[in-house]
Amino acid sequence: MNVDGTPYRTIWVEEDGSSIRIVDQTRLPHEFVTRALKTVVEAAEAIKVMRVRGAPLIGATAAYGVCLALAEDPSDAFLDKACKMLMATRPTAVNLRWAVDEMKAAVQGLPSGERLDAAYVKASQISEDDVATCASIGDHGLTLIREAWDRTGQSRPVEILTHCNAGWLATVDWGTATAPIYKAHDEGIPVHVWVGETRPRNQGASLTAWELGHHGVPHTVIVDNAGGHLMQHGRVDLCIVGTDRTTASGDVCNKIGTYLKALAAYDNGVPFYVGLPHSTIDWTIFDGVRDVPIEERDSAEVTEISGRTLGGDVTAVQLTPDGSPAANFAFDVTPARLVTGLITERGVCEASAQGLASLYPERAKPAA
Amino acid sequence: MNVDGTPYRTIWVEEDGSSIRIVDQTRLPHEFVTRALKTVVEAAEAIKVMRVRGAPLIGATAAYGVCLALAEDPSDAFLDKACKMLMATRPTAVNLRWAVDEMKAAVQGLPSGERLDAAYVKASQISEDDVATCASIGDHGLTLIREAWDRTGQSRPVEILTHCNAGWLATVDWGTATAPIYKAHDEGIPVHVWVGETRPRNQGASLTAWELGHHGVPHTVIVDNAGGHLMQHGRVDLCIVGTDRTTASGDVCNKIGTYLKALAAYDNGVPFYVGLPHSTIDWTIFDGVRDVPIEERDSAEVTEISGRTLGGDVTAVQLTPDGSPAANFAFDVTPARLVTGLITERGVCEASAQGLASLYPERAKPAA
Repeated sequence: MNVDGTPYRTIWVEEDGSSIRIVDQTRLPHEFVTRALKTVVEAAEAIKVMRVRGAPLIGATAAYGVCLALAEDPSDAFLDKACKMLMATRPTAVNLRWAVDEMKAAVQGLPSGERLDAAYVKASQISEDDVATCASIGDHGLTLIREAWDRTGQSRPVEILTHCNAGWLATVDWGTATAPIYKAHDEGIPVHVWVGETRPRNQGASLTAWELGHHGVPHTVIVDNAGGHLMQHGRVDLCIVGTDRTTASGDVCNKIGTYLKALAAYDNGVPFYVGLPHSTIDWTIFDGVRDVPIEERDSAEVTEISGRTLGGDVTAVQLTPDGSPAANFAFDVTPARLVTGLITERGVCEASAQGLASLYPERAKPAA
Repeated sequence: MNVDGTPYRTIWVEEDGSSIRIVDQTRLPHEFVTRALKTVVEAAEAIKVMRVRGAPLIGATAAYGVCLALAEDPSDAFLDKACKMLMATRPTAVNLRWAVDEMKAAVQGLPSGERLDAAYVKASQISEDDVATCASIGDHGLTLIREAWDRTGQSRPVEILTHCNAGWLATVDWGTATAPIYKAHDEGIPVHVWVGETRPRNQGASLTAWELGHHGVPHTVIVDNAGGHLMQHGRVDLCIVGTDRTTASGDVCNKIGTYLKALAAYDNGVPFYVGLPHSTIDWTIFDGVRDVPIEERDSAEVTEISGRTLGGDVTAVQLTPDGSPAANFAFDVTPARLVTGLITERGVCEASAQGLASLYPERAKPAA
């Protein structure tokens, strides 16, 4: 999407056809800095320290990381070593493993001299596929926003609430939850986005607000606590969030706090949509609350926060009293009954086994 | 309550019988500092800059502020001026106005020479009444915690979730929501409190965590987003929160985000209680969502946060990107249908006009 009028992606091949460059997301929202990745070690480091984050973008970065490895040394031994290094950066990222496996499969049978070109072709395909998937989610979601606009008699901006960052910064472009928003904005449908800050890591306040702002989408940051109040007072037309994992029954595991917004949406008759590529669907799980393991992260993410001082430095400050422990649950599960619809690259469906089966007949199995 | 074993109140008369001292809450949670109030100007300043906060404590501080004024000059003219100054500090604080009016009424008919002693008697009475009210809320709520403990077969600590600070720091002692918790803890019932940090002002993470910790009550700080997840997984036995205003029908206007926790409690069959002194009941309002005006505060409370740096300084940092606006709704309304019961100084009742009428027959009027 645009950064102050200039189109960007989160990762791209530079004009020389081989160097890789990323938006360094650890510097956001206070500085917009791009960064060259010259070696597979640099690509691995970028994933590990979260200069790039979001499942699709991690996958694309790992794919280009394999290219950088092959440029250094196209041997089987080095390829193996490089793939292991990339996979170790975020051990639970399913998409990372998938991308690395795809890259390996694309080059492994080839003679050394042909590997590098084939790798760039494959990495580019992974990247472009992600862009196409997100754009398609955007097109299907656009219909919902247009309908919401029509319901207002096209009289005022459509008010959309989102949580966390399922934006273009989490993908190669467009984002998942944000794709319909960008499509609507670019088509001239007036939208205004309530951006939940998304404690503890504040991806909403720092990343979503940044990307919407720099693309020119009107938005307002709110604390996570405020979503219910806005919905009670008719100030949200629809919610759109992303998902880290979607069960075969349509339960949605997303950033902690999503469930609370879904409850408020349900209580106030506000449609609650989830934007997702099919890669987030876990066809083996039917009961999300029971069966999706919830990651517990470092409590320092709750007790400390980073921001910019008046002097311009970015620094961490401690929020809690010494001696008070904190717990940090990274995700929660929103039961399908609270989800109005799933917006996928194949269309919008009901959040249910039947709904998903209608879009993915080749994958869906009847519940036991 | 205790601070590391020593009993404290938030405000007290020193041994000389006239000087006033407070806990300076602007220094919490990183420093525990008490502060002398020597003049009515100092008392007004303490209220204005929130060295003291919470309706009951503001009232008590204003009452002692009148004493300090009369010590300087017992004339009618100075009394009037002092009362006006105190009332201007937090113009919307109903309890502040009430306390100042009580003080005025207690001294106005008296000759100058008798005013000071009468004022200290009255201020002490206002203060002690608050302590007794909160202690009584604690006794009634204790029964609920004891029942919850019995339901566990006395096998593990009772898990209680709270939001914001309705603790002893918001009153003279005990607190409202926390009074049952302190009573249970002091009686040897094991409790563990999930403390929601309560963005944007983080009263939970800074004040509730501090006061529970220093009294020795086991607790864990969580982000506001995490409450729903905990309740989905059976990790909360009951919720207890405070209220800024309670309608005659039992709707509860409390710190922003309370409604979301109440929704999650309802969705998971977790009892949701509200601790309140009768002074928070607004007998003129029956529909809280429609009729309670919600204060919008400075957006800087959302975009910036204060904390302690590694070097030990307390400093503010900016969280959001330049140019991203923020909105700051201070309260929300939890409809009575989501509230299991109101814990008042007269007992526990259903959150309804009938429930309140059963405890306050002298005040309740039938709904029109």
